[in-house]
Amino acid sequence: MQHTASIQAYHDELMQRGDWPAGFSGRWTTLTFVPSERPGLEPYRMNLAAILPDQPVTAFAGVFTRNRFPGAPVISGRQILQHAAASGILVNNRIANVCSPSGLQDITALQQELGRLSGASPEGLFCVSTGIIGWSLPLQEITAAMPQLLQTSAQPIDVARAIMTTDSFPKLRAARCAVGSVLGIAKGAGMIEPNMATMLVFLVTDLEVSREDCQRALSAAVETSFNRISVDSDQSTSDMALLLSSGKGGTVAYEQFSSMVAEVCQGLAQDIVRNGEGVAHVIEVTVSGARSSAEARDCGKAIVNSPLVKTAIYGNDPNVGRIVAALGDHCGNSGIPIVPEAVRILVEDVPVFQEGAFRLSSAVEQQLSERLTAASMNPRITGYPQNDDCVRIHIDLGMGDVQESVLGTDLSHEYVTENADYRT
Amino acid sequence: MQHTASIQAYHDELMQRGDWPAGFSGRWTTLTFVPSERPGLEPYRMNLAAILPDQPVTAFAGVFTRNRFPGAPVISGRQILQHAAASGILVNNRIANVCSPSGLQDITALQQELGRLSGASPEGLFCVSTGIIGWSLPLQEITAAMPQLLQTSAQPIDVARAIMTTDSFPKLRAARCAVGSVLGIAKGAGMIEPNMATMLVFLVTDLEVSREDCQRALSAAVETSFNRISVDSDQSTSDMALLLSSGKGGTVAYEQFSSMVAEVCQGLAQDIVRNGEGVAHVIEVTVSGARSSAEARDCGKAIVNSPLVKTAIYGNDPNVGRIVAALGDHCGNSGIPIVPEAVRILVEDVPVFQEGAFRLSSAVEQQLSERLTAASMNPRITGYPQNDDCVRIHIDLGMGDVQESVLGTDLSHEYVTENADYRT
Repeated sequence: MQHTASIQAYHDELMQRGDWPAGFSGRWTTLTFVPSERPGLEPYRMNLAAILPDQPVTAFAGVFTRNRFPGAPVISGRQILQHAAASGILVNNRIANVCSPSGLQDITALQQELGRLSGASPEGLFCVSTGIIGWSLPLQEITAAMPQLLQTSAQPIDVARAIMTTDSFPKLRAARCAVGSVLGIAKGAGMIEPNMATMLVFLVTDLEVSREDCQRALSAAVETSFNRISVDSDQSTSDMALLLSSGKGGTVAYEQFSSMVAEVCQGLAQDIVRNGEGVAHVIEVTVSGARSSAEARDCGKAIVNSPLVKTAIYGNDPNVGRIVAALGDHCGNSGIPIVPEAVRILVEDVPVFQEGAFRLSSAVEQQLSERLTAASMNPRITGYPQNDDCVRIHIDLGMGDVQESVLGTDLSHEYVTENADYRT
Repeated sequence: MQHTASIQAYHDELMQRGDWPAGFSGRWTTLTFVPSERPGLEPYRMNLAAILPDQPVTAFAGVFTRNRFPGAPVISGRQILQHAAASGILVNNRIANVCSPSGLQDITALQQELGRLSGASPEGLFCVSTGIIGWSLPLQEITAAMPQLLQTSAQPIDVARAIMTTDSFPKLRAARCAVGSVLGIAKGAGMIEPNMATMLVFLVTDLEVSREDCQRALSAAVETSFNRISVDSDQSTSDMALLLSSGKGGTVAYEQFSSMVAEVCQGLAQDIVRNGEGVAHVIEVTVSGARSSAEARDCGKAIVNSPLVKTAIYGNDPNVGRIVAALGDHCGNSGIPIVPEAVRILVEDVPVFQEGAFRLSSAVEQQLSERLTAASMNPRITGYPQNDDCVRIHIDLGMGDVQESVLGTDLSHEYVTENADYRT
């Protein structure tokens, strides 16, 4: 069964089997309200959600965007990483709180009020916002809604739904071992709606890990998951991933913990790529024969970010000339000394370029085009993507022995419509 | 009057007034024929064109793509730069002669045959191809058409037309001083047709200059013109610019010569950007306050290449959040230490971001949206762009005193259609 189409069933099964971090006890709450000031958005509803562990969490970690215009939640989140404990996460959607004159003061006000009402320590509260860049939060109305928020009782999937903006389905993944588990929710669909921030990831675990291992595992997992996807831009002003551990479950070796966190992050990354409205194909580019991980990753991103490759795949056109042009352009500009004679390119396991020349025929092109058509989703999705498939491109640079994969998407009419016609 | 809409009149006036390199005497020829093998293209006509100076040219220069998969014409062209003299230029459109197993042999055969028929020295003939990547040239048919090609007599504008692929109008610019002139023609419309190579530029002059100055002036001009435009990719496998000087006109200081070559190249670069079918807006991003020219250029390109910025401008949406996000992403990834508080952003001379915060209101957004609408061309052009206008974005990084401008285009439905639906 497709993962994305069965997300509610997946969640319910996790909860029933106890396959989620049962030792992470605390409140999950959500609330929807209608702010009075509306920045041109109809219908304008704002969701609030909170994850409030019963006790302060001393093992926690965060990874934040490297964007040079970080939102206030990122600036504040980095400060909380310096504290002894985290006390919870508050999230709103609709307005991103980026470059607003009162951004950090608003966060302080939210921390104070939520702390007063819930008993959580204010300075350890992550206050996270996602949505339009440039508007200020409706502070009075958010604080006025807090008492009601704290009376609700939600499940993780409800919080995954509440933090959605342009997402068409909630993202939730889990990994379990004998003595505990890791649960992650995420929000993100590429920056496909104007000014909507890309990606929020919240992971909780009951496994007993040190704070240092928390950070190490999260940083490593982000590198092999969210840093390997590319829808239209690498980093928004608000991207963040947080990991909180209650430490009330068992203890496992670091390698096992780390691989569980990576598994959850990689699943969520796939869900984010597959989500975007306007995405007709998910593209996986694997680059082998590189001399370093960064070299492989950057070559893969150059291909998956090429508008010419993206539009060709949207049209189910296995246009190898564009793959070669994008690779050659990137390597030429970056001083990567590939030699055309040593490069091999395969599309869906079919060799299409080797020994310095294309290996194409009408029959091969027809075969590849049919394969691309089969892997396509109807981009006008209203719920879940129609398949879990992707278009696989493999490039062997013929220089070294490092391999990396990146995930991206095609470029469709629906993408342009989503992004051009939003305000009009 | 618009330059592009009056290109024929511009050309005719140049010729009548003698404002073109009259001292560059030689044959300009063009011919159209229908090859028997058709790589899926209808109607499939191939144009041939040649520029054959009466005498070998010892002052000449070339600048070639840095793409790591260079076409055979680029490989051969680089070799000719090592020779004592150039004897002319032969061009075909439709097939690019890139990564074809017989690419270089085909060029040798063309050089031999054209040399035999015209008396030009074979080893000094640039044989240039533009069109589909991956197919081989119809060698027999091109050589069979050569006698007829050599009987035609064309004008520069006819050659500019003959080398077009997806171009919707020919590109021709000239610059004159008291003792001679520089004339340039170009072909290019962004890589908007599948596998079509981007850009060919041929300049001729009668000014007497050294070979060294020829190369220096051309390299410098390319840097401030073609290397400052970005439609969808920086360099195709076939990009090249050639400059031939007959030396039969007068002598000028290097600075004057260099500025004439730059003027012609900058005009042609603007024409190429404005050409693309599917281009609704031309975007000029000026970056000041940078510490180096490369830093300014790369920041500008990051903005003009952002799919989110491009689609917003297509929708006449002055979406400043996306400009900030693209700039912040690039600077964060490239280690450029901009400080949001020191950055200023203006759209159409209106300050929209300063002192770390957006300066937006409904009135400002409305004003900018109207301005963007006025600057838009109907992308479904059949001939010339409807205006010579562009959307102006100015970014002051607040770090240094270097300024550069780059030109780019928006991202439209027509772009996706052009690029996705070509083979279907």
